[in-house]
Parts: sequence; structure tokens; C-alpha cells
Amino acid sequence: MKPATRSSFLYDRLAQTLSQMIEQGVLRPGERLPSVRTLSRRRGVSISTVLQAYRLLEDRGLLEARPQSGYYVRLKERPTEPRCSAPPLQPQAVSVGGLVGEVMESVSHPDIVPLGAAVPDAALLPTTQLNQLLARTVRQTEAASSTYQLPLGFAPLRREIARRSLEEDKALVPDEILITAGCLEALSLCLRAVAKAGDTIAVESPAYFGQLQLIESLDMRALEIPTHPRTGIDLGALAAALAEQSVAACVVSPSFQNPFGSRMPEANKERLVGLMRTHNRPLIEDDLYGDLFFAPPRPKTLLAYDPEGTTVLYCNSFSKSLAPGYRVGWVVPGRWMAAVKRIKYATTIATAGPPQLALAAYLAKGGYDRHLRRLRRIFADNLDRLAQAVGNHFPEGTRVTRPQGGFVLWVELPETVDALALYRTALLEGISIAPGPIFSATGQYQHCIRLSGGYAWSERIASAVARIGTLAKMAPRTQAA
Amino acid sequence: MKPATRSSFLYDRLAQTLSQMIEQGVLRPGERLPSVRTLSRRRGVSISTVLQAYRLLEDRGLLEARPQSGYYVRLKERPTEPRCSAPPLQPQAVSVGGLVGEVMESVSHPDIVPLGAAVPDAALLPTTQLNQLLARTVRQTEAASSTYQLPLGFAPLRREIARRSLEEDKALVPDEILITAGCLEALSLCLRAVAKAGDTIAVESPAYFGQLQLIESLDMRALEIPTHPRTGIDLGALAAALAEQSVAACVVSPSFQNPFGSRMPEANKERLVGLMRTHNRPLIEDDLYGDLFFAPPRPKTLLAYDPEGTTVLYCNSFSKSLAPGYRVGWVVPGRWMAAVKRIKYATTIATAGPPQLALAAYLAKGGYDRHLRRLRRIFADNLDRLAQAVGNHFPEGTRVTRPQGGFVLWVELPETVDALALYRTALLEGISIAPGPIFSATGQYQHCIRLSGGYAWSERIASAVARIGTLAKMAPRTQAA
Repeated sequence: MKPATRSSFLYDRLAQTLSQMIEQGVLRPGERLPSVRTLSRRRGVSISTVLQAYRLLEDRGLLEARPQSGYYVRLKERPTEPRCSAPPLQPQAVSVGGLVGEVMESVSHPDIVPLGAAVPDAALLPTTQLNQLLARTVRQTEAASSTYQLPLGFAPLRREIARRSLEEDKALVPDEILITAGCLEALSLCLRAVAKAGDTIAVESPAYFGQLQLIESLDMRALEIPTHPRTGIDLGALAAALAEQSVAACVVSPSFQNPFGSRMPEANKERLVGLMRTHNRPLIEDDLYGDLFFAPPRPKTLLAYDPEGTTVLYCNSFSKSLAPGYRVGWVVPGRWMAAVKRIKYATTIATAGPPQLALAAYLAKGGYDRHLRRLRRIFADNLDRLAQAVGNHFPEGTRVTRPQGGFVLWVELPETVDALALYRTALLEGISIAPGPIFSATGQYQHCIRLSGGYAWSERIASAVARIGTLAKMAPRTQAA
Repeated sequence: MKPATRSSFLYDRLAQTLSQMIEQGVLRPGERLPSVRTLSRRRGVSISTVLQAYRLLEDRGLLEARPQSGYYVRLKERPTEPRCSAPPLQPQAVSVGGLVGEVMESVSHPDIVPLGAAVPDAALLPTTQLNQLLARTVRQTEAASSTYQLPLGFAPLRREIARRSLEEDKALVPDEILITAGCLEALSLCLRAVAKAGDTIAVESPAYFGQLQLIESLDMRALEIPTHPRTGIDLGALAAALAEQSVAACVVSPSFQNPFGSRMPEANKERLVGLMRTHNRPLIEDDLYGDLFFAPPRPKTLLAYDPEGTTVLYCNSFSKSLAPGYRVGWVVPGRWMAAVKRIKYATTIATAGPPQLALAAYLAKGGYDRHLRRLRRIFADNLDRLAQAVGNHFPEGTRVTRPQGGFVLWVELPETVDALALYRTALLEGISIAPGPIFSATGQYQHCIRLSGGYAWSERIASAVARIGTLAKMAPRTQAA
């Protein structure tokens, strides 16, 4: 009996319906099913039909009966986590840019199932409210929206950011903050302020491809440091690199690193800052996902461990929580402020005015924390469902991260799977994923992919994940295998 | 008799009033004064009092009597034009950034008389209308404002820009255009696409300091090419540089170059493009002021002389005509599109959405050409008054450019004047000017300043220009003198 074909038995058809609902996450692991009596009444079938369906699904391992309680969707084991990465410890010229561009363009198409880009669904963001505030503020402030916001950016916005910094154990004053066109520009300004062409930049491995692209575009070299999916960058390996190689700076995302979702333990952060300070090397912090923690407290920033501002340059933006397209981020560059300011002047002069006005009004009004709480719940839920779906559909031996924040999942497929081929095949079927190789300067992660949980869970997404699993099972083998 | 003290003679007081009105440009050169009879009646003084006042001013050279016609404000000779620049023909590491930052910060203060920055007064721009369109469009399009406008920027805006390109003798299609965060980012993307750290970039001399700053921030070197205040870059000198030196690229503003205001003859443009093509070197066109011509037709772009797109990378923005603070420009990078796109992704990902929506709506609605016509008249008038005021108040031997477009004036003071000292002294008195040295990588223009005519003429500006003249006359001498 093939479960996929339409059976003439009532109980079999009911079992099929239920198993689809479980597959698509309508019924979730651990969830209690309606009692036999209730379902019988509601669907107008006999009690024995329901009972037969439940028992069939119990046999297939989808349900479990709990004495005195009823039937439950069986809790599945989450797939194993990936191990600590082990990139070659060699500075490397980067050439991911072409592929990254291709991936980014492909995922921006509205008909594509958006599992590729780490972009939150606009429907989950206060888009309407922001646009209303934008409309109101530009009319109230008139010229402020159309003139340069020199030198650091719109003062009320810097004030709001400073106000919020209290919660991150590093109280800032507005003049320490410079507004940028998103977090990537912040990183770009920092890198250009502390290093030059040919210099080696230590990064996590896998690294956010935007960092690699940036390093490539600046003719710098990347040194990938082993990184643990849970605890982040390996401090022993970094210490060795600093001692043995000429490293100009280090870029680290301590909280929910993209793509691993790792969260550095507080003790590690303190050691990291101390290590960089000892070597007198700048530490660039990418805190883009720091506010998207699934369990309080908010992780401390590296900046909080650098009260004198001698070591850390801090970068963040509103792209993951409010409005990616507004392109508003900020940098706290500490003792490199003068250099960062000069490069900002020399590149874009100032950040666009209107989005700054809208964000300042939004933060001043209150409600951002409530929005963040809701967003964290949704993302936690999305990642949970994503991981379950991967566990259900992906090939045996697939490993998956267990992020404690952010909204991306790193999937390590069996080594025989070619992630780039999988990416291209999936794209032909209207599904985008981020292939592993764009997260490495040294050609790692050929069998890995990143899935984004930025969109609300839906049947469309559930089927897309299942389909990727199927494609991965049929995928052409890599030569290496 | 000191004209500045209040005289007890009626005719003398009337003459003082009139001479102030002439100084401040209320009465303009060539303008006819009221008839003796009319003024006598209006001011309630005798005919002989008016006649005495007019004759006194005639003696002082301020008025001239024309037979059968009356008294006129005397037409003054405009000051002589500066000569072709003659910078040393040596590639030079640039270090203007610190000073440029200082200048830009000082001029952004609202209490300062704004003769320093080449920024149009928001009151001359359709600021209210743009903000209303911004308010309307972000609410109509919702998500479009908050999501990334990948890969090239908001399509309707690119369509409008392409539509307008028809008038510039180079019809563009929207996919040849990439939207940037202002013209400076466009230049930055182009430079990074065609050259690398250590490379030599040929620029006009004096050069727009933003270009120099950019070259500095990219660790490139600038080679200043002699430039004529009327006809622009010296093609003979450029040809020699291309033949004798290793020049990676050339940046040219053919139309109303900042700060000279020069306009390249069409024949020169054709030769320039041919020259660069022959040497197989990219030519980056900065066309920021091209729409601000004082007499039609609009100057052709260099792009119009490069129909195959093999040589020219074209940069422009809406910062000088619509909204500086919106930070929206564009680049037409020809065969460097892939590289430019990669660098854009790697630096700011995309340009902020809301300002793009507003500008697209504004251009689609019509009225931009009418606005430009009005703006050109105002700027032409401002530069005329500025030049007259400089002629009236600046030291003997001062030279002034005669721009045929744009809104900046280049003033070459006697060599004994230290422009940097003048800049600092004027700033203490609440007046900003742009000191000459920021326009050179080789320390030229120590005795030059740039004045901006971006603000509507007013008594405040008239007095400020007069005051700069006075300060220049008393200025400390340079050591060189």
C-alpha cells in the first residue's frame, strides 16, 4: 500500500490527511490529537475508523499513545548538530562576489520561495506603521529630510540608539554613534579604517558572505578561524593565529552568528576582547542579530567588555528587525571615530534622511520592545519547524544547528551532496537556498546550505523544505565523494 | 568725510542709503534709478537734495548719468578670470581628508553664512512637494519601501532616469542604470571597479575635494592635470600624462566642473573620449552639474560620445537639484556593470527605498523641467551677484571664474593671501568659505577660495561677501609672499 495514492478505505484516507498535517506542521510534535470520540463526531465517521487511523499512524511512528491521555504527535529527535568547523589556517584572497551576486539576485524574485536570503518578511515587520511615521515626520520636519544629516546622522535617532544601549551594559552617548547605510556599510567603514589592501582579516568560519564579499572588494585577505556552532569562534585557534600570523583585525558576530546562529558564552567574550587588546588589534563586532535572542537576557555586546573603547568597533542596524530597505545602521567606532567619519564623508557623505526620521519617531513612540518580543517568538517557532522539517525530509546523516537566536539554520548534508548543484536545481523549481560555499573563502561547506526562517511558516514553505530534502536525496554526487 | 558715519546733510544721508543699496545688490549694475523728481516726491526731500546725492555718487564712480535718460548704477568690469592651472605633473598620495571633514562640519552649522558648501538651499528646492510625494508613495506601496530594491534599484526610478537620458543624446535603458547613495557613491563604485590601491587616477586641477578624499580613502594616488577655467581639462597635458605615466583611470566633470565651473567644448569631449579609448583607459564622468546650464542647449555628456559603452562610466545624482539629503544618485557603468554591482552589494547592498519612491513619483508627475529652469535662473543670478560683490570688495588683483552653469565661483586672491587663514578667520565671524588647498593633492591654491551661490541672494550673504573681502585685505600674509 502506497500512502501517497488515494485509498478507498476511510481510515486510510483519514490517516493520510493526518500525516500530511503532521508533515506540514499543522499538527506539531508533542501536540495532542482530538479524542477518538470528538474526531468521529466532527468528521462524521465511526469511532473504529478514527481508531484504526490513529493506530496506523502509531505503527508508522508518527503518533504515540499516552495512557489516560490520548494520542500525541510523536516528538522526533532533532538532527545532530554540526561539529566545530576546521578551515585551513591560511590567509586567502576571496572570490565569492560573483556567486553571492547571483544568489542575491535570484532570491529577490517575488515568485521564489524565500529560504535563501536572511531577510525578514515585511509582513512580520511594522511596515505600515513605519511608513505612516515616515509620511508624518517628513512633512513635519520639512528641510531636515532633504538636507545632509552631517556629521554623524540625525541627532534624535542617535539619541534613541544611545538610550537603548543601556540595556546592553554599555551606555553610549549620541556623539559616539555614526549612522550608516545599514550594517554592511558600518562593517565596510570599520574595515577601511583599520586595515588596507593586502591585509589579513580574521573571520569566523563559516562567515557571513557579506563580510567575505567586503573583504574581497577591498582586496584584503580572509583568514577563517574554526568556529563552533554553539559557542562561536574558537579562541585557541584565534590566539594561535594572532601569535603566528600577521592579522590586521578580526570580525566577530558574538550573538547568533550568521550562518551558525552560535552564541558566545560571556566568559569567551571577555577573553576575546582581552586577547585582541593584548595583541593591540582592532575587534570589529557585527551585532546584527543580537536583539533576536530566544531566551533572555539579551547577550552582552563585546563593546560592553571594552569600556575604554580602545579595542572594539561596534556595528548594527535595523535591517533584521524593522526595515531592511530603509538602509539604516550605525557604528560605534571608539578611537577610530575620526577615520570612520572621514571615510563616510568620502563615500556617501551622509545617510539618507527620511528613513532616519521615521526610525527615530518609531523608537521614541515606544512599542519596539513589544515588536521584538513578538518577532523573537515567531523566529524561534520558524527555526523549530524548519529543523523538524529538515529532520523529517533530509537525507540520513544530515546535521542541523540549534540557534538560540536570529532566524537562520545551517544544514550540513552528507558529504556526497553538492550544495551548489542543489541550489541551482532548487532554483529551477522556484525555491531559493543559500549554498554553503559562499560562506567560505577557502572552498569549505560544499555540502552545506543555509535556510532562512525569516518568513512566517506556511504550507508553501513546508512543501519547499520537503522538496529540498527530496532533491538532496537525489542530488548528483560531488567528485570528492 | 567718512561715508560710514551718519552725516547731518540730507543729500549725504540719501547718498549713503543709495550706496548701501548698490553694495548689497538691491540696486544692480545697469539698473536705472528713479528720476530726480520721483525720488524727491517719494522721500519728501527737495529736488536739489536728490540731485546732489546722485552727483556725489557719480563722483564716487557708483552711478553714471546717461543723457536724455537719467542716472544708472554703473556697470563694473567683472574681475579678470583665473589662468589655466599648472599643477606639478606628479602622482601624489592624497591627504585632504582631515581638512575636508573639518570644513564640511563647520559649514553644516545652521548659524553659519553658507558660502562654503556647494549645497543648494532647501528653500529653493521642491522640498515640500517631495516630502508629500514621499508620504503618499510609501503608504501606497507599503513593502516596497522597506524591502531591498535589488539588484539595480527601484525600477520606476530607473525608467524615469532612462526617459530623461534621451535629451542628453544617449538613450539609456533602465537595466544599464544602477541607483546609488548619491553621486559620490557612484564615483566610489566606479573607481573601485576600475582601479586598486596604489593606482594613479588623473583628475582635473583644481579637483572637487570629494574626489580627492575618495582617492585618499582608497589609497590611490591623484595626478592633477592642468585645467582651464572655461574649457576644462587640458587635453594636451592629459595625453602626455597617459603616454608617459601609468594612469589607471581619469575622472572628469565636463559640464560646470566643481570648483572651476568650466564647460568643455563639444569637440574637446569627443577628443577626450577618443584619447581614453585609444589608451584603453576608463573615463569616469562626474555629471553632477550638467543640468544646471545657464544657456541652452544642455551640454552633451561624455557618455554620448561613447555609444558602445566601452570607455565611459557615468555618474550623477539628484543632490544639486532636488534633495541632497535623500542620497539618491545613479551610475551607468557600461562594461563595468558586473563589477560595480558586486561592489555595491558588498558595501551597502542596496540604496534606501523611500527616497527612490518619492523621486520616481516626482519625475513621473512632470514639473521637473520647470523647476530646473527656475533653479538655473536663480543660480545664474546668484553667481552674477557674487562675482560683482567680489569685484567690489576683494583686494586688487583678485580673479574670478565666469561659470556658465552650476552654482560655485572660484576666487583667486592675490598670492599674498593665505586662504586657510582666511577660512578660519571668516569662520570665527560666522561665515563659511571653502579654502583652496582642499581642491588639490599637491598643495596648490593656497590663495584661492570657492564661494557657493546655492542660497538665494540676501543682505546677509551680501554683507558676508563684503566682509570676506575686508578680511582678505587685512589677512596675514603667507610665508611664500
